Amino acid sequence: MTDEYFMQLALKEAARAFEEEEIPIGAVVVAQQKVIARGYNMTEKLNDPTAHAEMIALTSAFNHLGAKYLPDATLYVTVEPCVMCAGALYWSKISRVVWGASDSKNGFSRVQPGVSPFHPKTQLTTGILETECAALMKEFFRNKR
Amino acid sequence: MTDEYFMQLALKEAARAFEEEEIPIGAVVVAQQKVIARGYNMTEKLNDPTAHAEMIALTSAFNHLGAKYLPDATLYVTVEPCVMCAGALYWSKISRVVWGASDSKNGFSRVQPGVSPFHPKTQLTTGILETECAALMKEFFRNKR
Repeated sequence: MTDEYFMQLALKEAARAFEEEEIPIGAVVVAQQKVIARGYNMTEKLNDPTAHAEMIALTSAFNHLGAKYLPDATLYVTVEPCVMCAGALYWSKISRVVWGASDSKNGFSRVQPGVSPFHPKTQLTTGILETECAALMKEFFRNKR
Repeated sequence: MTDEYFMQLALKEAARAFEEEEIPIGAVVVAQQKVIARGYNMTEKLNDPTAHAEMIALTSAFNHLGAKYLPDATLYVTVEPCVMCAGALYWSKISRVVWGASDSKNGFSRVQPGVSPFHPKTQLTTGILETECAALMKEFFRNKR
């Protein structure tokens, strides 16, 4: 299974957020080529600005595995994680993080470009289905104006 | 009511964590001189490395107020927040963050000293009951060895 395949599943989660008038970001956690957790942005529904797709997917993955760490898992997320989510991914010791579109305004790199809050052992891959991931965001914010 | 008063309440939360064999960090959220939310570290109990005192207290505060932002609130936490919690506090738009002991290993400043992930409008106060907050941590890790 390719990165594009799993990013499509993250995009499905993002589309759910879009339908519910949430900023359309979605995530899946994959272990041994299987999706073990999903999440999409629920900040409006839960009235909680920390209810990001990644946080929801991570907590679900910990519950699923009954484990505090995800050393053999990959998180796919449609948009570059923010500082909070990068910090959460650090704690998870996840082996790999893959995102689609970059986010110069709210992505983790806003604080200090070039400095990574991720765990040194976490591999990062960017730009997978970037156009589709970014297009969903652009459509959302165009509709909001 | 003084910062020391509210930090004592955060220390009470930290003591609960200690009793439950969790890394002893506690937090309270205060608005209009009243505690509106509490939290203590539950990473072991919940099998979730993101279940930090601050995250739990923040989510509780959003629920309590039915609001996504905390512009008139202060979070007191016994130990310097990590990157994840600093990122969460950023999203909350909280007016003030007060912590007791600094944390050179896991605090937010580990990534890039001198660069703040907090919201520019968030006031930071440090060193309140620092000795007590640090002593609880030291005792915990001494017992673990």
